[in-house]
Amino acid sequence: MENRVTDLFKIKYPIIQAGMVWCSGWELASAVSNSGGLGIIGSGSMYPEVLKNQIEKCKKATNKNFAVNVPLFYPDLDKHMEIIINNKVPIVFTSAGNPNLWTKKLKQEGIVVVHVISNVKFALKAKDAGVDAIVAEGFEAGGHNGIEELTTFCLIPLIKKHIDLPLIAAGGIGSGKTMLAAMSLGAEGVQIGSRFVLSKESSAHINFKNAIIDSKAGDTILTLKELTPVRMLKNAFYKKVEDAYLKNKSTEQLRELLGRGRAKKGMFEGDLEYGELEIGQISAYLNKIHSAKDIIEDIMKDFYLTRKKINEL
Amino acid sequence: MENRVTDLFKIKYPIIQAGMVWCSGWELASAVSNSGGLGIIGSGSMYPEVLKNQIEKCKKATNKNFAVNVPLFYPDLDKHMEIIINNKVPIVFTSAGNPNLWTKKLKQEGIVVVHVISNVKFALKAKDAGVDAIVAEGFEAGGHNGIEELTTFCLIPLIKKHIDLPLIAAGGIGSGKTMLAAMSLGAEGVQIGSRFVLSKESSAHINFKNAIIDSKAGDTILTLKELTPVRMLKNAFYKKVEDAYLKNKSTEQLRELLGRGRAKKGMFEGDLEYGELEIGQISAYLNKIHSAKDIIEDIMKDFYLTRKKINEL
Repeated sequence: MENRVTDLFKIKYPIIQAGMVWCSGWELASAVSNSGGLGIIGSGSMYPEVLKNQIEKCKKATNKNFAVNVPLFYPDLDKHMEIIINNKVPIVFTSAGNPNLWTKKLKQEGIVVVHVISNVKFALKAKDAGVDAIVAEGFEAGGHNGIEELTTFCLIPLIKKHIDLPLIAAGGIGSGKTMLAAMSLGAEGVQIGSRFVLSKESSAHINFKNAIIDSKAGDTILTLKELTPVRMLKNAFYKKVEDAYLKNKSTEQLRELLGRGRAKKGMFEGDLEYGELEIGQISAYLNKIHSAKDIIEDIMKDFYLTRKKINEL
Repeated sequence: MENRVTDLFKIKYPIIQAGMVWCSGWELASAVSNSGGLGIIGSGSMYPEVLKNQIEKCKKATNKNFAVNVPLFYPDLDKHMEIIINNKVPIVFTSAGNPNLWTKKLKQEGIVVVHVISNVKFALKAKDAGVDAIVAEGFEAGGHNGIEELTTFCLIPLIKKHIDLPLIAAGGIGSGKTMLAAMSLGAEGVQIGSRFVLSKESSAHINFKNAIIDSKAGDTILTLKELTPVRMLKNAFYKKVEDAYLKNKSTEQLRELLGRGRAKKGMFEGDLEYGELEIGQISAYLNKIHSAKDIIEDIMKDFYLTRKKINEL
């Protein structure tokens, strides 16, 4: 399979592993890249020194392309970018911020730049900023998300209608069927988060992985929309959030309630009660931990099988 | 194209027009059925006498199968069902209530019964009640919807995993691309609402049709979740709802604010400010009024063209 996404990243399959806080370090990223996809180090949970170390380890573990995801609201943003440039990371995915900030500089350094958006307005902004490709992320995706609640089904055709850049779909994708669906909608590649959280190589705590396996339909919610909307598993911490809403707490009080380090506590340290457990709606569908290699092979097999079935209609 | 959905309804294409209050009377339903799909009369906005009249007109306008959609919370439910049975309507779509209520009785009368659900729990209930097929409706769909916010991308594979009944996808579908995507996810048919609201034959007010054409990404919202969740265009009435939430109004106060006849006022009488304008997220993608026949032909053409492209990957 060859298209603008595989060409841009020099990968075998148009499968991109999402950069995820506390889950996607060098082990996962290199395993995905070694298996024909594009692995991404999620720098949002890393201090600059940690990121540097992760990039070095990733380079030793794979000679294929990999990327770093950088949320543009990160406090140490300049340091992160300096490390990325100095260590010649070939591809950067930026998210959650203004694509004008860094796109030009990164491209001058020969880095491929991809920006993550969740609505048409920001997609047009990203295009104007000169990015090489766009990830369009639907409402069903885990973690931070847009406020307009556009689902993958509605978002992908809308973006495709407005912009002709290579388009990568995210949100609700974790199988060959969903990959085929995303490509039917107009995407040329898929970004997969939740299913890779459940990989052997992900650094998510085993408690978190088991909570994903146990989760049922309706167990995630997009909440904290006044801060940065985030999709997570409903747990004791979420009950506190719900309670705060019922009591009409202010945005400031919600921020205090969220506090610091809650994502680390949940996803990395395995506190299922009071941690923040960021995951997509698709978690209800997932029920097993596999290696990154097996995940990619399974997705591609399912993709071709489903396409064959669709052809027999 | 032949599958369990086309066989069950005896239709040419697995395209079902959604039963929609104030939009889908006999003119739309018969036009869809005459064009190879399955037309549905939306009885939710009709008094029993009106429904009887609509069924009679529909029968005169087509010799193909058509259906009636019946929300199971409707106050005149018994009268509606009596009319449906006496007039030998071949297919009934039930929604918004307990499928045990009427499925057995309708099936004894030789009527095909389809139930609309938005999560796994209700799908299993519908299966146990003995329905012939299921419509699974995602979060992006217009009008009344589930509280679990499962999107079409996540809902369809989940339902398919649990139940082997003929499965019809709804929510976000209005083109051949989206139809192909839904069928990749495991659906055997699609139910299309918003695009048919924009048909020549729909009884939606022209103001409402023009508002759909003008709408942009993010202009709809799923709200009033404490009553029955409903997706609609954000307008002056929605601002009042939003304001009520900010002021922490009770469910009773929300019910009073909604009042009676607001959907009629908006969708049928064209009051864009204070009417309720029920429509799906896909409205941002739609920009032209077509005949039902042209809509179906366009969808099928796009379906085959997209499938051809997908095969060339």
